[in-house]
Amino acid sequence: MTLPVADMLQGGAKWFAERGPLQDRILSTRIRLARNLRQLRFPPRALPEELNAVLHRVENTLTHLDEWGPDRLFPMERLSPLERQFLLERHLASHDLTGDGGQRGLAFSPDEGLGLLVNEEDHLRVQALRPGLQLDECYSIANHFDDQLEAELEYAFSEDFGYLTACPTNVGTGMRASVLIHLPALVLTKRIKKVLASVQQVGLAVRGFYGEGSDVHGNFFQISNQMTLGERESQTLLNLERVIHQVLEHEDQARDLLLRDARMQIEDKIQRALGTLYHARLLTAEETIALVSAVRLGITLELEEMPPIQAINEILLEAQPAHVQLREGRELDAQERNVARARYVRRQLASAGAVR
Amino acid sequence: MTLPVADMLQGGAKWFAERGPLQDRILSTRIRLARNLRQLRFPPRALPEELNAVLHRVENTLTHLDEWGPDRLFPMERLSPLERQFLLERHLASHDLTGDGGQRGLAFSPDEGLGLLVNEEDHLRVQALRPGLQLDECYSIANHFDDQLEAELEYAFSEDFGYLTACPTNVGTGMRASVLIHLPALVLTKRIKKVLASVQQVGLAVRGFYGEGSDVHGNFFQISNQMTLGERESQTLLNLERVIHQVLEHEDQARDLLLRDARMQIEDKIQRALGTLYHARLLTAEETIALVSAVRLGITLELEEMPPIQAINEILLEAQPAHVQLREGRELDAQERNVARARYVRRQLASAGAVR
Repeated sequence: MTLPVADMLQGGAKWFAERGPLQDRILSTRIRLARNLRQLRFPPRALPEELNAVLHRVENTLTHLDEWGPDRLFPMERLSPLERQFLLERHLASHDLTGDGGQRGLAFSPDEGLGLLVNEEDHLRVQALRPGLQLDECYSIANHFDDQLEAELEYAFSEDFGYLTACPTNVGTGMRASVLIHLPALVLTKRIKKVLASVQQVGLAVRGFYGEGSDVHGNFFQISNQMTLGERESQTLLNLERVIHQVLEHEDQARDLLLRDARMQIEDKIQRALGTLYHARLLTAEETIALVSAVRLGITLELEEMPPIQAINEILLEAQPAHVQLREGRELDAQERNVARARYVRRQLASAGAVR
Repeated sequence: MTLPVADMLQGGAKWFAERGPLQDRILSTRIRLARNLRQLRFPPRALPEELNAVLHRVENTLTHLDEWGPDRLFPMERLSPLERQFLLERHLASHDLTGDGGQRGLAFSPDEGLGLLVNEEDHLRVQALRPGLQLDECYSIANHFDDQLEAELEYAFSEDFGYLTACPTNVGTGMRASVLIHLPALVLTKRIKKVLASVQQVGLAVRGFYGEGSDVHGNFFQISNQMTLGERESQTLLNLERVIHQVLEHEDQARDLLLRDARMQIEDKIQRALGTLYHARLLTAEETIALVSAVRLGITLELEEMPPIQAINEILLEAQPAHVQLREGRELDAQERNVARARYVRRQLASAGAVR
């Protein structure tokens, strides 16, 4: 049983290719539910036979589920380092899942919008992904799958606390809802720190995205809930949604300010970024993200000659290192990756029928 | 009698739009002949009535010449500062001609390839311009016009020295032949200083072009003879041509070296330059020249998707500040010029039918 890399490269991540609400400013929504099986130790303390027992029970359960069936759970140790990196880039796996250690597994739906991580920090992590801002939709997808699993598997659950998890920060709902948001105008106007600080003040977590902690590459940020104990899922989602809309208002104000004070400079910067995507023969992953970020801003500002946002979003996923290498069918050195990435970007934009 | 600015902007400089030998590395050839009229003081010392006498005699002479006729001599004091700057950018006038002081005039042929500067440093400066490397052709054009003028005007000439001129460095042939050469590979490989030093060692003058002394903008250099005394024009031209060919050999070697050691980096740099020309919304004159320089190198290296060299060369002339302003029909501030220049460049490349 091998990972269908060719198919996955061919179609891209199907859930991500769909249109989503507020997609010009919000890339995607993710809901992740942490669950554990009763009477088996949590993965960090579990014996190998306990981990194997989890894998077997999950495999069994999936085999009986209508939308799933047999052979849907990929054992991580069978995957090459490049394939694991690919799953990470695809947002299907986590660093904990792809790191050293056996008895871990991964299952996902054909559109990649629904996933199951087995024996990561918890026995089970159910994950749903949707384009744009779709917290309720996303939760309902994850919740439906969770119900199906729960019908077959006995979860570790306490009447007092809720779902029990390996890390106390997840106890209760076990839910982490996160929104990947693009805030270029707040970064350009240097207001981002203040806005993100106020987001953290109301108990949400923020981290940079597509650039690991630094906000220089891409201006993408992930905002997520931290609270899992003492409130219902619906309340957590409502709070998060409310804050996201406040952040978007700040971003819109910053965009108005940019257009008022520096319209020509902004247009120039964005059009040059597009020109570089069309023409460069060498592109690093970091530069590509920064250029895509600029062009996304151009799309929101409705500048002329901008490519479709879906084409630009796909580049974010598909220009990542493992994607580039698997597309070429082999490991590449840094310069080869940059050449292949630039070629991919040119073709992607050309096939999107964008005006060059 | 007004300068036909609209026509001149419309067609561009026609001599410059033609193909020329070695045009991928040599932009243009210029021959300038310094002449003075007998029994009148040289312009730096002449009385106003003497300068007027020169103007009248030249006007008279042009009126009787077949290819010229009446009303072909533009009095400089009638031209606006913008028009004078325009003539400078067009290589038709010199700083000395367009500066303060009256009684100066300028005539030029419809294709702008032949010109006559009156009461600059000398009473007459005959000038011929040709695309690419065309020293003999250029000399023969200038010489033919000079003969026509000499048939009507009595030149200051000494049997011992030759033509007498205001500055002793021009005495003799009165000829300055110069070649505008593009040497990007020598600059990139940092060999330019050594090569230019050896050019100066054999008695030729070198100066930066399109960037006033700095070689950062454009990598264009003007190489010209200094010797005017003690050798015939044909010998001067032969020497210059020989040295130009040696410089071109060095440039070719540097290009081979670049392609061998850094092909991808060079292609990337050039394609990005082209992308910026296509997409920028703000372009300074300096950046435009640097980008054009890179694209010219790409044309020589036969990279894919390069525009025709004529279209790129035209940008060198037409993206200059007075050109940009006269095209818009008014004086512009710096940002307005940069906006108008970027718009012109995009249209020029689009109308050249180049692949974007």
